[in-house]
Amino acid sequence: MNRLLFTIMPKKKTPTILITNDDGISAPGIRALVEAVKELGKIVVVAPDKPQSGMGHAITIGQPLRLTKSKEFGDIEAYTCSGTPVDCVKLAVDKVLHQKPDICLSGINHGANHSINVIYSGTMSAALEASIESIPSIGFSLMDYSIEANFEPSKKYIKQIVTEVLAGKIKDKHLCLNVNIPAVDASLIRGIKVCRQAYAKYEEDFIDRKDPHGKSYFWLTGAFVNFDKSKDTDVWALKHNYVSVVPVQFDLTNHLLKKQLEKNIRW
Amino acid sequence: MNRLLFTIMPKKKTPTILITNDDGISAPGIRALVEAVKELGKIVVVAPDKPQSGMGHAITIGQPLRLTKSKEFGDIEAYTCSGTPVDCVKLAVDKVLHQKPDICLSGINHGANHSINVIYSGTMSAALEASIESIPSIGFSLMDYSIEANFEPSKKYIKQIVTEVLAGKIKDKHLCLNVNIPAVDASLIRGIKVCRQAYAKYEEDFIDRKDPHGKSYFWLTGAFVNFDKSKDTDVWALKHNYVSVVPVQFDLTNHLLKKQLEKNIRW
Repeated sequence: MNRLLFTIMPKKKTPTILITNDDGISAPGIRALVEAVKELGKIVVVAPDKPQSGMGHAITIGQPLRLTKSKEFGDIEAYTCSGTPVDCVKLAVDKVLHQKPDICLSGINHGANHSINVIYSGTMSAALEASIESIPSIGFSLMDYSIEANFEPSKKYIKQIVTEVLAGKIKDKHLCLNVNIPAVDASLIRGIKVCRQAYAKYEEDFIDRKDPHGKSYFWLTGAFVNFDKSKDTDVWALKHNYVSVVPVQFDLTNHLLKKQLEKNIRW
Repeated sequence: MNRLLFTIMPKKKTPTILITNDDGISAPGIRALVEAVKELGKIVVVAPDKPQSGMGHAITIGQPLRLTKSKEFGDIEAYTCSGTPVDCVKLAVDKVLHQKPDICLSGINHGANHSINVIYSGTMSAALEASIESIPSIGFSLMDYSIEANFEPSKKYIKQIVTEVLAGKIKDKHLCLNVNIPAVDASLIRGIKVCRQAYAKYEEDFIDRKDPHGKSYFWLTGAFVNFDKSKDTDVWALKHNYVSVVPVQFDLTNHLLKKQLEKNIRW
């Protein structure tokens, strides 16, 4: 090798991988995520100290936050945070890493985060928060809510997608991917499919009961309904045993309606 | 008048207007919103029983919810809800109204919800939740955080925009508008401007202190920075004393990045 070339070639920097989730630091899903990517860089975990499912993009502004060192992952640097998944990302960058990581991974969530669920999801909101800060990010979810879910088949796809993103093969200033993995045997997964978010959602219902003191309380429940029958959605892909990848963004502007308003409304 | 025509003309139905917010039912902002629109339909208020700022699209799934009748607005039907702004909308539709209202209004928020703040905002998440259910919705925010904020100049614009939406002049299956009002004297407001969401955000910082027991705690703070210098944004409009209207939607798919992935990545 040319000696000059050798001396000016920079040593490849080990990437820093920030990992969080919304099921809490002790959930099996985050352990599976750490295992899937630990060879790809220096891992730092900052995850909620309790389950934070359904927290969406909530942040804690009315009270203080705590960070506590955790031995949950042995020698891997890890902290629990008393706040939401989005708080975890903010605190990790500002008070743990003191700089932006090379990538932020969130999950593996116990349960699907496809279609409209991305908006309610703490897992995906943590990833979206990182992308707002121009940190490439990926949220991973397995379509199995149970604590005994089998995360093994997910690892191969996680490693593959994270490797591609770390290699810089996907160009976007605010790169954020929503990856859902079907809960089937590895041999049945047909590959990875790029999708759009389906218009599918829970048709809400509330259980209406009386507490021991005779007062009413309500508890959210509901049935999942897919209103979106085309084949380019995440719901379609998952139903057909593909790993779904939806690129996600945080500009909520409805540009079509903006044009209609500019054309038709005299304000 | 032709008698036949007279008999077949349907009586115009009084619209039902659901009102919520994220500052809690006792905030002056929601009182101003009720006053601004009370002549336009039958008002029903379902609002959080405590401040819920920064709750984003959080929902309560791990514990029960309570609804309590409130006399906050005299004869107007009103309830406090123990959950988040999004919970308020869900419970209102399912357990108070037992049907969809004609419109859902959220606010008036004490403080701006322009640019990226729409994602963290309980006010806007309540409106977005209604639009997911195909209920036309509008979130209103005044750029003044103080409890003594002057909501009077806002009322004229709120009444005007709500009247237009109730008249069906804006067509969208999932209509949702994010309206911000500059905190200036009424005579200085230059009108209403349709905008897109600016890429402007808080540069986070955390106050790092010790509690009385010597343990560290962190408290979120930060300075607002606008990275988006073009003139079609909400931040520009508000700076120039326009009422900003950003049409908002819940499809988070990054369609541009989706095309890039489909073209360049072999998965």
